[in-house]
Amino acid sequence: MTTTNRVWRLRKRPVGELTDDVLSLEEEAIPEPGEGECLFRLNYLSLDPTNRIWMSDMDQYMPPVELGAPMRGVVCGTVVKSRNPAIKEGDIVSGLGEWADYQIGRAGFVNPLGDTGGVPVVDAFGTFAVVGPTAYFGLVDLGEPKAGETVVVSAAAGAVGSIVGQIAKIKGCRAVGLAGSDDKCRWITEELGFDAAINYKTEDVPAALKRACPDGIDIYFDNVGGDILDACLKQMNFKGRVPTCGLISQYNATGAVPGPKNYDMILMQRLKVQGFIVLDYADRYPEAIGALAGWMAEGKLKVRQDVVDGLENALQTLKKLYTGANTGKLMIRVEDV
Amino acid sequence: MTTTNRVWRLRKRPVGELTDDVLSLEEEAIPEPGEGECLFRLNYLSLDPTNRIWMSDMDQYMPPVELGAPMRGVVCGTVVKSRNPAIKEGDIVSGLGEWADYQIGRAGFVNPLGDTGGVPVVDAFGTFAVVGPTAYFGLVDLGEPKAGETVVVSAAAGAVGSIVGQIAKIKGCRAVGLAGSDDKCRWITEELGFDAAINYKTEDVPAALKRACPDGIDIYFDNVGGDILDACLKQMNFKGRVPTCGLISQYNATGAVPGPKNYDMILMQRLKVQGFIVLDYADRYPEAIGALAGWMAEGKLKVRQDVVDGLENALQTLKKLYTGANTGKLMIRVEDV
Repeated sequence: MTTTNRVWRLRKRPVGELTDDVLSLEEEAIPEPGEGECLFRLNYLSLDPTNRIWMSDMDQYMPPVELGAPMRGVVCGTVVKSRNPAIKEGDIVSGLGEWADYQIGRAGFVNPLGDTGGVPVVDAFGTFAVVGPTAYFGLVDLGEPKAGETVVVSAAAGAVGSIVGQIAKIKGCRAVGLAGSDDKCRWITEELGFDAAINYKTEDVPAALKRACPDGIDIYFDNVGGDILDACLKQMNFKGRVPTCGLISQYNATGAVPGPKNYDMILMQRLKVQGFIVLDYADRYPEAIGALAGWMAEGKLKVRQDVVDGLENALQTLKKLYTGANTGKLMIRVEDV
Repeated sequence: MTTTNRVWRLRKRPVGELTDDVLSLEEEAIPEPGEGECLFRLNYLSLDPTNRIWMSDMDQYMPPVELGAPMRGVVCGTVVKSRNPAIKEGDIVSGLGEWADYQIGRAGFVNPLGDTGGVPVVDAFGTFAVVGPTAYFGLVDLGEPKAGETVVVSAAAGAVGSIVGQIAKIKGCRAVGLAGSDDKCRWITEELGFDAAINYKTEDVPAALKRACPDGIDIYFDNVGGDILDACLKQMNFKGRVPTCGLISQYNATGAVPGPKNYDMILMQRLKVQGFIVLDYADRYPEAIGALAGWMAEGKLKVRQDVVDGLENALQTLKKLYTGANTGKLMIRVEDV
């Protein structure tokens, strides 16, 4: 075990697109766990759209990261020292932590990953920690899909979106995805079984939605907000549902972002638009993980990790999320486990 | 019984503010009821914000009124001839009809008003036909108020808003209303028991909301959309609800209306924004009317009708709704019953 640590610290609140000066990577001493805590070594760092929100001081669902503090992230690591009787040295833990090689695991923030049922740790962490339960609860709990309905999901080749479309198929729905390249569109239709895909960068989205959703849209699972939200609102069916998982199209905006022009469709079609984040479902995680693991074992759910090596590459890699350069779950690997 | 009829017909789809040429009042023959229909004479014509929607060809929840057709309205009248065995001459009927002295009542569109339990017909029609059930289902069913929560309602001196605030009080909530004059603000606090009122025309709405809602907003009952919606979204509490009943601020707009800037609060605070119209609750009307009539009898719910005489004044009177010139339920009286 080395004695120096690397920690990404927040230096500046981002304005507009992420720039290289918002975080700095510092060499520091390895911290000591206090009573009830553990120390763990990072294996994987999940990179998520919400990271950009935590860096900013916009209204948000948790306190933003303080200037000078370690950057917050969803992490998976191996315990090297424990003063928590529930956690042993060598345990794999995951949860909410920092962008750092070594870090303190606080009770309630990280938990043992537990038995992954034969699923490799990288897939279990990549799928079960955040994105799988996000897709599951957003679609199943808020979307309430019924067989025969049409589900549209944006960022469909992303980590959450790719799972949303597959769960929609499992539930007997028509699944339509929007993605930003022909390769992504091919991947979700040919590999993942979506019924249709729309390349939102090259196609006329309203016209393409009309073709892909001849019976209208019953559920729009929103990851992006913006123009795609507007186009979907316009084609929602009576009593449609819009689980709101992300608004990534506006996270890099520098000023106030206009809301959807077609907001009035909420009234006209009696839609239910509901925001959520997966932390709201903490007590129901086992339900989601059980369902997801079962579908994976049956071959009905395919997951893909987009893995980049090296903690030092975290900031550059994060930028890929906002330009649509990733396919599947984006993460940094420090060391496989 | 006279032999000529007066009928308001739609001549032009309104663009921007209502103008005098959108409808014309015609003298016509009195129609004859067909099998299963009745003929009734108008007593009261309800004037509602949604009238403007029906005149336009915007996306809406019913087909718009066709050009040349009689203007659609919520009506109350006395049956003068019946070919429907369930309806007798002399019955008071109410439901969906036309802006006309004499008109055909079709099965399923109008129904006998029935026993009003001692409540005058004008109040029973004014409160039970549309606005009372609208306030009731929007607040109780979608808002799910819990004692101690804070309910904000816009257009609070309007027909729906004034009832929403009083039901909020009955449910043990703090009731805060926005209205457009000091007189209206006094009326809702001093007469109706709202805890606080904000004159949105003279006060800084965000600052006034902060003062009036020291614990934030749990339910925003939206009648207006626009800037007031934005201000409320910004101060919503975690898991707040936004029953969306109307967006009157934008019905007279001539172009696309920007959506709420603070739409992202739906995600950040995990809000539920849900549109509804009272027709969605047709099968639960008795529940609402029972509750409303009970509260009226106990003196806990006060209603106010804003009555203007003369069918010929209908179009001029309707304009009052969009300038906030009415207090309470706006209607035309042709003849008391």
